[in-house]
Amino acid sequence: MKIKERLFTPGPVPLPPEVIKALGQQIIHHRTPEFTQTFLAVREKLKQLLKTDKAPILFASSGTGAMEASITNFFKKGDRVLVINAGKFGQRWRDLAKTFGLKVIDYEIEWGKTYDKKKIVEITEEFPDIKGILVQHSDTSTTTLHDVDYLAKISKKLKDCILVVDGITSVGVYEVYPEDIGIDVLVTGSQKALMLPPGLSILWYSEKAEDRLKKSNIEKYYFSVLAESKKQEKGQTAYTPAINLIIALNESLKLMLEEGLPQLAKRHEIMALATREALQELGLKLLSQSPSNSATGAYTPEGIDADSFRKVLLKLGFRVAGGQDHLKGKIFRIAHMGYFDVMDMIQVIAGVEFALLKTGVPVELGKGVKKAQQIINQYL
Amino acid sequence: MKIKERLFTPGPVPLPPEVIKALGQQIIHHRTPEFTQTFLAVREKLKQLLKTDKAPILFASSGTGAMEASITNFFKKGDRVLVINAGKFGQRWRDLAKTFGLKVIDYEIEWGKTYDKKKIVEITEEFPDIKGILVQHSDTSTTTLHDVDYLAKISKKLKDCILVVDGITSVGVYEVYPEDIGIDVLVTGSQKALMLPPGLSILWYSEKAEDRLKKSNIEKYYFSVLAESKKQEKGQTAYTPAINLIIALNESLKLMLEEGLPQLAKRHEIMALATREALQELGLKLLSQSPSNSATGAYTPEGIDADSFRKVLLKLGFRVAGGQDHLKGKIFRIAHMGYFDVMDMIQVIAGVEFALLKTGVPVELGKGVKKAQQIINQYL
Repeated sequence: MKIKERLFTPGPVPLPPEVIKALGQQIIHHRTPEFTQTFLAVREKLKQLLKTDKAPILFASSGTGAMEASITNFFKKGDRVLVINAGKFGQRWRDLAKTFGLKVIDYEIEWGKTYDKKKIVEITEEFPDIKGILVQHSDTSTTTLHDVDYLAKISKKLKDCILVVDGITSVGVYEVYPEDIGIDVLVTGSQKALMLPPGLSILWYSEKAEDRLKKSNIEKYYFSVLAESKKQEKGQTAYTPAINLIIALNESLKLMLEEGLPQLAKRHEIMALATREALQELGLKLLSQSPSNSATGAYTPEGIDADSFRKVLLKLGFRVAGGQDHLKGKIFRIAHMGYFDVMDMIQVIAGVEFALLKTGVPVELGKGVKKAQQIINQYL
Repeated sequence: MKIKERLFTPGPVPLPPEVIKALGQQIIHHRTPEFTQTFLAVREKLKQLLKTDKAPILFASSGTGAMEASITNFFKKGDRVLVINAGKFGQRWRDLAKTFGLKVIDYEIEWGKTYDKKKIVEITEEFPDIKGILVQHSDTSTTTLHDVDYLAKISKKLKDCILVVDGITSVGVYEVYPEDIGIDVLVTGSQKALMLPPGLSILWYSEKAEDRLKKSNIEKYYFSVLAESKKQEKGQTAYTPAINLIIALNESLKLMLEEGLPQLAKRHEIMALATREALQELGLKLLSQSPSNSATGAYTPEGIDADSFRKVLLKLGFRVAGGQDHLKGKIFRIAHMGYFDVMDMIQVIAGVEFALLKTGVPVELGKGVKKAQQIINQYL
């Protein structure tokens, strides 16, 4: 039977019609007043998104580009940093920091768990010279949320430390206001909660971080924050910008701000809660002990290979993500960020039920859906 | 909470991405080899859709235009016709026939019911000079299917009678092969199971009907079948065609033929069956005693105004249709034709459950969805 394909991966994510329309336009030139006007409008909207007077800068790159810029612009060779390494993207912080000559304290954490506050205190007491704490706010590889408020407090107590947060899958899912929280460098990317195709990354930095820009002795050119910030303040970019993504970002930010940031966060919370509760109702074990609202990961039942299960789900039209590295074949992940609403979650849970039955797991059809409906109904 | 709007009306219907893409193109001129090639390709696909060697003709009009053409091209003033008048569109046959000077036997049937075979025999025995039987195969105003096979047999027995079928909401939902069934004139429209915007109508006629073209003495110009058929055989049209709809029709027919006509019909059957069973599981009474697979109509519970109920459903993102004339405020209708699959039906049923609760009807959340899932699961 013919079934539509539905994308439920935690990036790329489905796009809103307004974004698709904006992308499907003839290109305009970037050295024009027309583009500058749009670019400045995007900066204003990004300031609202982050509740700050200081606009972030944009790079034509995927999120990893902005992560690299966070290392190369705000540190000096030999600086000691603490990496909260609790998943695939924690590893990326570590690898980036090492690549550019930083001394890394690699705090490895079991995937699906978050950091231990005591351990953080111990490390920072042992190494008071830490120049930066690098963390994922939400790590989709483990569908885990890491408390950044606590790390901000710790960072402030240290002599000269900045908190660098990968918010690639948290900005737009949560209310992430870096000044309120005490984040010094915040990066995000286009293909997640911003509901755009990949190719655009965003970097915000605090005044404290700004002081470091001129002191940094790490080589960089394309990802030079100083070069870009001077240009971008005037509505231009140092190098060719991702023109159509910026035009589309103007549309997606409009949608997000119109919905309201607290409402946006609440909706993601409800979608995630309904999904988590429904999967557990079906007897599945969640991957994370500190689950993020950007995506939900769950183990398939004993004896069911998660990648085979995902193939069954895909035949039913639902494309979800699998596990990475040692979680490969063990888990599947369903996105909540993207152009989704609560009714989409009902659909994917129904899909999971069909797929479980098809792989021989004796579930009661409708049990998970009912649970999700009961939760959703409280907020309708 | 922000929820997407989902269109579940029985025309217009949601469009497939392939169709949207085809529509979003620069226009081409219709007096070009390029357009002729597409037009001839569409004719070939329509022949496959109707399982015939004789291509239908296209009009730049909504379905009613092709209905008018059925009257003005295949009858003479004063001809007696039998109208199966069982809904809004049965009334349209009657009104069209009267407008153009035909003598109408108006067989009025309670909305939601189909014709009585005995009554048909009585009428045709009393009036053996009937020149045409006019019927809706599926009437979406009453979500009712009328058996056209039986009427074809009756029509053949009469001296000089043709069977004229409004297949606007049946072609693409059912396997409608006019030569196999014995239909003489079949009309359909773009904005239903063909998954296009409105503005294109289609008319097929048998050899028997063709004989009448030159004899007809009713005035027509825009809807002249003779004028159009001569042109369209060569890949052109008498008047300006709906260019982009024809290009898009080429895409939607491709999708339908790739799926396979029996599979297409089966899918609609499953979507309709799951919806009907789910609504009944929720305690709702169906409108039709002979339900069509193109749309399902149901009464709202005693004391619940259907139009208020629809407003609640719309706030939950689901745009369904209401009742017409005396059914206004009493029923709501959910489409199955259009760019839908079984997972969409699960979603709209969940929506109906939420809306029932919101209007104070004590339903058990998930009960209807579960029923639908059980039915769908048999075919996955």
